[in-house]
Amino acid sequence: MLDVLTNRQTIRKYSNQPISNDLLEKLLEATCRAPNTGNMQTYSIIITHDETKKKELSPCHFNQKMITEAPVVLTFCADFNRVNKWCEQRNAKPGYDNFLSFTSAMIDATIAAQHFCVAAESEGLGTCYLGTTTYTADKIIDILQLPKFVVPITTITIGYPDETPATKDDRLPLNGIVHYETYKDYSADDINQIYAYKENLESSKNFIEINKKETLAQIYTDIRYTKAANEQFSEVLIAVLKKQGFWKE
Amino acid sequence: MLDVLTNRQTIRKYSNQPISNDLLEKLLEATCRAPNTGNMQTYSIIITHDETKKKELSPCHFNQKMITEAPVVLTFCADFNRVNKWCEQRNAKPGYDNFLSFTSAMIDATIAAQHFCVAAESEGLGTCYLGTTTYTADKIIDILQLPKFVVPITTITIGYPDETPATKDDRLPLNGIVHYETYKDYSADDINQIYAYKENLESSKNFIEINKKETLAQIYTDIRYTKAANEQFSEVLIAVLKKQGFWKE
Repeated sequence: MLDVLTNRQTIRKYSNQPISNDLLEKLLEATCRAPNTGNMQTYSIIITHDETKKKELSPCHFNQKMITEAPVVLTFCADFNRVNKWCEQRNAKPGYDNFLSFTSAMIDATIAAQHFCVAAESEGLGTCYLGTTTYTADKIIDILQLPKFVVPITTITIGYPDETPATKDDRLPLNGIVHYETYKDYSADDINQIYAYKENLESSKNFIEINKKETLAQIYTDIRYTKAANEQFSEVLIAVLKKQGFWKE
Repeated sequence: MLDVLTNRQTIRKYSNQPISNDLLEKLLEATCRAPNTGNMQTYSIIITHDETKKKELSPCHFNQKMITEAPVVLTFCADFNRVNKWCEQRNAKPGYDNFLSFTSAMIDATIAAQHFCVAAESEGLGTCYLGTTTYTADKIIDILQLPKFVVPITTITIGYPDETPATKDDRLPLNGIVHYETYKDYSADDINQIYAYKENLESSKNFIEINKKETLAQIYTDIRYTKAANEQFSEVLIAVLKKQGFWKE
């Protein structure tokens, strides 16, 4: 089983083989066993099968083809709506309209998403996370009709793989991620050592050339994750937290 | 493998059997293959073996015994410090001092934590999440010496199990978690149906009696996750985001 976890690859291309309802239900049953905050299960999962809905969601994910091509799309949401309604019906006064509660529901939703992914991969499915969910949370809320106290956190597309990516070998070495006892901050030499492998890959060099940049880091700062976009998406997300009830002015 | 995911149980009591460095390294290698944002791996893992450090961390986790009794404690952190340093050394101007970047690093850290948990459980270890990490992030930052742009998100204790909890059967039914195409908001009847099983468990009834409450929901709102505590921890966490560079005044 450790092999499934160590050798996993993101799969962006799916075959026409449908995912049976039985299998999907088994995966969701496993997902509901994921660890969560105080057994409150402060998350919901919205399943998209419908082609029209996929097309509506597509621009929210910058039209990445996985959304319309995958047989099933799952949006994992932080959800205190259900808990709040339960409390109100049981003579209990919920105090979850705050930032801390949002972050704990966000952790619940993300743990469930990854539990689901491993389950899907262990059954031979390919998965892909879409990090765009928080960027366009305002629009996703409208499309999926999410009520107050529900915020979309991440989206996963799944399907039977129709590609075999070469084994990814561009992760940082363990000493770039793991610290013992206290955080040892990185020296200039550490940074050079940690990023050397990744920077020297042919694929990285090609990427720099095609994009007319000097360094791989510039691909991130100037193209993929720019300051301007991050600041704009931050505003969207904070407005969403206010609208959904997790942030007081 | 689906069985490992479906039958997992939180383990809070560990035997004296140590975890070998080889095994820990294998688990961490698997963890680094977890999906993450744009392959930036914006997380770090701080490993605590040292007894003195565990004792220092213990009050941050409200003295839950797992912290001092587990052979290994892992704190998963959102980390843009490494990326920022890399960018600055490579003539690239990082734009990650904002809320969106924090949430994306938080998602990376949480996915990695859950990937780690499944890996550990697949090798026979027991795991327990501590949701207290964000509540006391300010103190954990001092103890683990986390620099700017690093925020602790969640903590996991691991060890060989020294308990066999009865199978947990108090999760909500699938129709309480999963929605198809759009979110169907819960009616009063839905809430009654979804929570019926959990509320009727003997353990729930005992818990209500011991705590002199009327309903299970009141245990959550009045004792376990109170409005006053959530609001106080929200303030702590927002102050932490400001101090660590992810939030502008």
